[in-house]
Amino acid sequence: MKMTTGLATPFVITKLQGEQRLEEADLVAVEEPLQIRLEFEKGDNFITKDLLVTMRSPGHDFDLAMGFLFAEQVIHREKDVLWIRYCQQVKEEEKGNVIIVRLAQDLDFDMNLLERNFYTHSSCGVCGKTAISAVSGHLDLVNNNLQQEIKAKTLMALPKFLSCNQYGFKYTGGLHAAVLFDAQGTLLALREDVGRHNALDKLVGASLKKGIDLENKVVLLSGRVSFEMVQKAVRAKIPVLAAFGAPTHLSVSLAREKGITMVGFLKKDRFNIYSHPSRIK
Amino acid sequence: MKMTTGLATPFVITKLQGEQRLEEADLVAVEEPLQIRLEFEKGDNFITKDLLVTMRSPGHDFDLAMGFLFAEQVIHREKDVLWIRYCQQVKEEEKGNVIIVRLAQDLDFDMNLLERNFYTHSSCGVCGKTAISAVSGHLDLVNNNLQQEIKAKTLMALPKFLSCNQYGFKYTGGLHAAVLFDAQGTLLALREDVGRHNALDKLVGASLKKGIDLENKVVLLSGRVSFEMVQKAVRAKIPVLAAFGAPTHLSVSLAREKGITMVGFLKKDRFNIYSHPSRIK
Repeated sequence: MKMTTGLATPFVITKLQGEQRLEEADLVAVEEPLQIRLEFEKGDNFITKDLLVTMRSPGHDFDLAMGFLFAEQVIHREKDVLWIRYCQQVKEEEKGNVIIVRLAQDLDFDMNLLERNFYTHSSCGVCGKTAISAVSGHLDLVNNNLQQEIKAKTLMALPKFLSCNQYGFKYTGGLHAAVLFDAQGTLLALREDVGRHNALDKLVGASLKKGIDLENKVVLLSGRVSFEMVQKAVRAKIPVLAAFGAPTHLSVSLAREKGITMVGFLKKDRFNIYSHPSRIK
Repeated sequence: MKMTTGLATPFVITKLQGEQRLEEADLVAVEEPLQIRLEFEKGDNFITKDLLVTMRSPGHDFDLAMGFLFAEQVIHREKDVLWIRYCQQVKEEEKGNVIIVRLAQDLDFDMNLLERNFYTHSSCGVCGKTAISAVSGHLDLVNNNLQQEIKAKTLMALPKFLSCNQYGFKYTGGLHAAVLFDAQGTLLALREDVGRHNALDKLVGASLKKGIDLENKVVLLSGRVSFEMVQKAVRAKIPVLAAFGAPTHLSVSLAREKGITMVGFLKKDRFNIYSHPSRIK
């Protein structure tokens, strides 16, 4: 049996509306595990390493792998990956859920980076302040490369774009989106996932593959903004993050420290700016 | 410097509303790392193990630790934990972010369970089907111990309760809640967190500590429902999960397999039942 693929799958469910009780088919967001396996040479050794298993929406899996490896600083550019393919030496029902990433021969990276997140490293302190220091230590400031001013009304127009283009959400209500716009509000790319971190990884991975420079772009997020998501934005040098949801205090602190303009509670007639408001006119 | 505590903290931000641009203070949800450290005896050895670091809302940290350890099957009842305390041998700014859990002397558990999740184990297949089998193998069916019928109108009344009682969300818009009700819709406990998995762990942990039997209760979730959250519900024998958000297809499949009634898109006049609708009249 091949497992469920695509963003959504139908289930017959019971719908209650007032006194009415109906049985009918409804689309539900697909969630499947993805295992990312690395292959690389280190000195004279050929190494295979199962990096992580994450629950995700099937689709754009190579983008997810690229974006994740970029966020974790294993890779720095598209050519650091020789190829990505689905593993065929797995059970029939696991096909499409295991991918192998072959790293370039001359790629030099710290094996310690192959942990899920910086804060799993025991050397890192366990508080927001040290978490921010840890990020600050190895990631540069996001410079104001956004030549064009971003107009407030451009941002307020983004929610409309998303409702027209976010297909998975429209049918399931269960997906997050990460969307790339230029400073004029032109939609460049959109990725969806059951996990909001995955959606952003997919978008960054897709941009790497397409050679899109993120330094003068805006990324719109359908949900809330966590520390880890700002960390990914700093790494990708995204200068403006706009979200429909709320940010956490640590994500605001990191955005202020690293030069990212963060917008939250974005609606068609209003929004909040949590950091570096000067980019928005 | 003591780090930020509590669910919310004020930031001065820029608010845009139409043509208006105002600088004012606004409450933002606090997000801080928490490290859970285990201490236990195994044979003649005294073992200290850093279990995980999770980003969470400070507060009810001991509930979070209890609920997490219960979900991961390290502990099975309240008395499996001798004590929990904040670690004092840390830097000043990390105080309150590292807790030590001392397990009971006679507690027998599989050291392999000290991984973040079942699906990080390499022995587990990587697809939804094997993920469900893995859960099915070690967790019982949730029996229909809900003697009382649950009335649809009882469920429809829950959103109102939550808007009155979910303090963190009201002020920040950035928190998830997990709320315990009896079958008559009486609110028994509420826990909030920036992470929806944490909110549920806190609620289950609090119930363990208070000796509340979850087998005839309803748990309301403010967000979406993932596979992992249903896994936690199966483990805690919660028969009815009701959520404001959408479920994923794998969470529906698991709820169907394990006997949990799952309600999604809960509103004051309607909702969807994804599994075992017979409990709801």
